Amino acid sequence: MDKLEMVRELTNILGPNRVLYKEHQLLAYDCDGYVAQKARPKAVVFPVTTEEVSRVVKLLHEHQIPFLPRGAGTGLSGGATPLNGEVIISLAKMDRLLHVDFDNMRAVVQPGHINLQLTKKIAGNGCYYAPDPSSQSACTIGGNLAENAGGSHCLKYGVTTNHIVGAEIVLPNGNIVEVGSYMGDSLGYDLIGLIVGSEGTLGIATAITVKILKKPEAVKTVMAMYDSVEDASNTVSDVISSGIIPAAMEMMDQLAMQAVDKSNYYVGYPTDIAAVLLIEVDGLAAGVEEMAEKIVHMCQKHHVRMVKVAESDAERALWWSSRKMAFGAMGRISPDYLVQDGVIPRTRLAEVLAKIADISRESGLRIANVFHAGDGNLHPLILYDGRIPGQTKLAQETGSAVLKVCADVGGSITGEHGVGVEKLEEMRFLFNDAELQAQLAIRSVFNPQDLCNAGKLVPKPSRCVEVKRAQQLFQAEQAVYDGFQEHTSILSPAYKEAK
Amino acid sequence: MDKLEMVRELTNILGPNRVLYKEHQLLAYDCDGYVAQKARPKAVVFPVTTEEVSRVVKLLHEHQIPFLPRGAGTGLSGGATPLNGEVIISLAKMDRLLHVDFDNMRAVVQPGHINLQLTKKIAGNGCYYAPDPSSQSACTIGGNLAENAGGSHCLKYGVTTNHIVGAEIVLPNGNIVEVGSYMGDSLGYDLIGLIVGSEGTLGIATAITVKILKKPEAVKTVMAMYDSVEDASNTVSDVISSGIIPAAMEMMDQLAMQAVDKSNYYVGYPTDIAAVLLIEVDGLAAGVEEMAEKIVHMCQKHHVRMVKVAESDAERALWWSSRKMAFGAMGRISPDYLVQDGVIPRTRLAEVLAKIADISRESGLRIANVFHAGDGNLHPLILYDGRIPGQTKLAQETGSAVLKVCADVGGSITGEHGVGVEKLEEMRFLFNDAELQAQLAIRSVFNPQDLCNAGKLVPKPSRCVEVKRAQQLFQAEQAVYDGFQEHTSILSPAYKEAK
Repeated sequence: MDKLEMVRELTNILGPNRVLYKEHQLLAYDCDGYVAQKARPKAVVFPVTTEEVSRVVKLLHEHQIPFLPRGAGTGLSGGATPLNGEVIISLAKMDRLLHVDFDNMRAVVQPGHINLQLTKKIAGNGCYYAPDPSSQSACTIGGNLAENAGGSHCLKYGVTTNHIVGAEIVLPNGNIVEVGSYMGDSLGYDLIGLIVGSEGTLGIATAITVKILKKPEAVKTVMAMYDSVEDASNTVSDVISSGIIPAAMEMMDQLAMQAVDKSNYYVGYPTDIAAVLLIEVDGLAAGVEEMAEKIVHMCQKHHVRMVKVAESDAERALWWSSRKMAFGAMGRISPDYLVQDGVIPRTRLAEVLAKIADISRESGLRIANVFHAGDGNLHPLILYDGRIPGQTKLAQETGSAVLKVCADVGGSITGEHGVGVEKLEEMRFLFNDAELQAQLAIRSVFNPQDLCNAGKLVPKPSRCVEVKRAQQLFQAEQAVYDGFQEHTSILSPAYKEAK
Repeated sequence: MDKLEMVRELTNILGPNRVLYKEHQLLAYDCDGYVAQKARPKAVVFPVTTEEVSRVVKLLHEHQIPFLPRGAGTGLSGGATPLNGEVIISLAKMDRLLHVDFDNMRAVVQPGHINLQLTKKIAGNGCYYAPDPSSQSACTIGGNLAENAGGSHCLKYGVTTNHIVGAEIVLPNGNIVEVGSYMGDSLGYDLIGLIVGSEGTLGIATAITVKILKKPEAVKTVMAMYDSVEDASNTVSDVISSGIIPAAMEMMDQLAMQAVDKSNYYVGYPTDIAAVLLIEVDGLAAGVEEMAEKIVHMCQKHHVRMVKVAESDAERALWWSSRKMAFGAMGRISPDYLVQDGVIPRTRLAEVLAKIADISRESGLRIANVFHAGDGNLHPLILYDGRIPGQTKLAQETGSAVLKVCADVGGSITGEHGVGVEKLEEMRFLFNDAELQAQLAIRSVFNPQDLCNAGKLVPKPSRCVEVKRAQQLFQAEQAVYDGFQEHTSILSPAYKEAK
C-alpha cells in the first residue's frame, strides 16, 4: 500500500483532521525528549477511542506497516522516535479520566491523561496519584506505563509498576484485551507487570487502572547544605539505615545548584556549597515531627553547614520547583545537555560521584548531578555545545562511560527513563546474547511480527544476523537457552568476591 | 531410561543418601498442603548446591523425565503434587543464608531457607523480612517465591513479589541464569516479576535476593469485637479510606473464634460475638499512638461491643497466635477442612460474606471465615468429614461456588495460595481459551518441553486438544491472539455498568 492509499484509509477511520501526513506537519514528531537521534514518521494519527486505536492498528497490521504509540513526547530515551518511519499513534487526545472509585482507591484513565492532572482532579477528595516524574505537568500516564516512570517520591511509594494494576491493551494485531485486575491481585503469569516498562513494544494501552492514595496528613521538608559530597552521601545512608523511609531524598551538586540559582527558581544556595539534600517525610502529624527532628540530627552528625525545615507550603513548593526544574535550568549554563539515568547501590554513592568527576575531567565536559539519592538513582547531566563539531558524540560517549561505572558497581543503566534507542548498546553491559534472545522471545508472544515499536528496549543479539520472529527463535530452541550464562546482577559485588 | 538406571545416575550425582526411591520413602511426597489430590513421585532428590540442581535437571531433561521443585510442602493448592509421576527436587537441604547486606537492606538466601528463620537471624540488627504467611515457621522462601505468598502484614508491605528483587534460576534444561537485579531496578522485560508466582513452571530458583526491612520503632495492636459482620466490615472500609494504612487488618467470624477458643490459643472471645477485627499499626512511636486512637474511635462509631489495645507484647503475641493458628484450630471442631482463597473489592465484604453464608446453608457444610480484611483477601474454611462418602467432593464444589462469587464481584480466585492443581478449573472463570494459550506461550519461552511442573497454574485451553510446545503455538500464530476477547477484570463492575 502506498502512502497516499494509507492516508486515505486512515482518514476513512479518523476523519481528515486527525491524520497528519504532510512533511511540515510531521517535523515535530521526529523525536521525543531524546534529541540525539531523529527520524521522520510516515504519518501521525489521533484516535480518541479504543475502537479507533484497534481499527488503525488492524489496518497497519494487515498491510505490515510499522507503527508506535506516543504520549506527550517527554520521554528521555527515544522510545517514541520513529526509527523505521513508523506511523505514530498519538494518544494525546485520549486524555479522559474514565472512572474514580474512592472506596477501593482506584482510578481508570485513558493513556493520554496527564500525570499531574489526575492528582488535581482527585485532590478535592484528599487523594493523589503517587508517581511524580519531573515532567509530571506534561507527561501522560500511558507514557509512564511504557517507561515504568519514577519520580522523587518513588523512594517511599515505589515506581509506576507499583501503581498500575490493570490495563486495556490493543495488541499489535489490533485485538483488544485486558491484563491485570481491578484490585491488583495477579493470576497466572504477571502480564501487567510485564507490560509496564515494555516501552510500547508489546501493544498499546488504551485504558489504565491505577491505585490512588490518600494525601498524608502532614509533610515536612528538610533542606541540608554540605561542604562535602561525602558528608551528604553519608547522611543519606544513615537516614535509610535508621529505618525512616522518607517520601523523597534528593541530592543536587554544586554545578546543578549554580544553574538553578540562575533560573526562575532562585533559592539562594551559597555558591560554594558542595551538595544540597532535600529530604521530605510524610505521614501523621505526630510521627512526621519526630522524623524531621531525627533527620536534622543526622545531618548535623555529618557536618552539615546549614539545615532547615520548610516553614510554609510556599517555601516547600519553591524548594521542590528548584529541584524539579533543575534539568531545564541547565539551559542557563550550557547550550545543550544530555541527561543520564543510572542506578547504583546507595552505599557506593560517594565513590561513584568521584568516578563521574574523573570522567568529566577526562572528557572535558562539565557534569552536573541532580538525583534521587535515596534510591541510588543518579541523573548526571552532561553539558555540551552541539554547535561544536564532535561534541554531541563526545557527550554520548561520556554518558555511556558513566553508565559503565554504574553497571560495574552492581547497578543498572536506567532507573526510570527507559532504554529506548539511547541505551540499546549499554544493555550489553548487563545482558549477553542469549539473555537478549530470551527477552525477544517474550516480545514475540505479543508482537511476533515486530511491527509495534521495533528496535526499542532490547538490542539484537550481536551474533545473530536477524532475530525477528518467534518461529525462528523456537525452531532454534536451544539458542534461547544455551547462551544464557551466569552474570552478576543479583548478588552484591562484595558477596561475589567472597564467593 | 528405566527407573533403576535413573536412580543409579541420580546417585552418581548426589550420593546414596540424597536419593529416595523406595515406595515407603515416597509416601510423604504424594501431596503438599492440598490433600484432595495425590500422586506418587518417581523419586525424591536432595541437592545442596546450584550445581547439583543443574546436573540433576540436565540429566532429567536429557531423558525427558518430568520433574518439579518442592520447598517445605506447605503449599495449599497442590503446586508440589507430582501429577505426572515427577522426580521431586526437594530444596529442603538448600537452607543457607548466603549473604546479608544491612547497608543496602538485602539478603540472599537459598530456596529452602525457612521464612521465619530469616527474620530471626537478622533481628539482632533490628531488621526483618516482611512477607509473613501463616505457615512462616515452616514454609520456605523458595516456596514463597513460587506462590507469590502473602501474609497478614502484606496489607501495608505488599506480597512476596514486592520483596524479591532477583534470583538465580536453573532453567528446565539445566542451565543456570540470573534474573532481576540486586538493587531491584528491572531492565528490559520484568523477568523476575514473571518468575515470582509462576509456581515452579519456569524453572527452579536456587538463590534468592530479598529486601529486608528495619523493624518499626513501635507497634500497636487493636482488637475489636462486633455484634454484626456488617459493622466490622464498615470499620475496615472506614480505616482504609481515612488514609491510615495499618500493617495488618484481619477478621475472624464467630465459627472461627469458637474453634480458636477450643485450641491452645485461648483468648476468651465471647461466644456470641459475630466478628472480631485485629488491627495493627506500626511506625514511629508518636504516629502509632495517634493512629491507634483514631482506629479505636472508628470502631466505636461502628457500634463495636468491645475494643482494646494490647497492653503487652505477650498479649499481642497471643492475639496473633489465635489468628495465625486459626486454620489448625479447625481440627477442634471438624474432622477435615478445605481452605479457600478468594479476593474481592473491600467494599463488597459484607455482601460477599452474606452470599458465603447462603452457600453454606445450601451445601449443609459449615464455613468459617478467617481473613485479611484490609486486602479483601478471604479465607473461607469449609468444614467437612472426609469419612462420609461424597463430602470431600461436596466441599470442593462448595469452595468452587465461593470462588465464583469472588470472580463475579470483580475479584479473583486466589490472593496468596496459588492456582496449583486445585484451582485450574476456576481459572476459566477469569480467562478464555486464547488468554490461557497466551499464558502457555510465555511458559514456553522458559519451559518449551513442559518438563518442569507440567499441568500447574494454567489449565489447557478446552478447545485445544494438545498444547504442549511453543512451536505449535507459534505455527498457529493467530490462535494466540484471535481468541483474546474483552473480559472485565480491570474495570470496576460499577464502571462497566455505567459504560
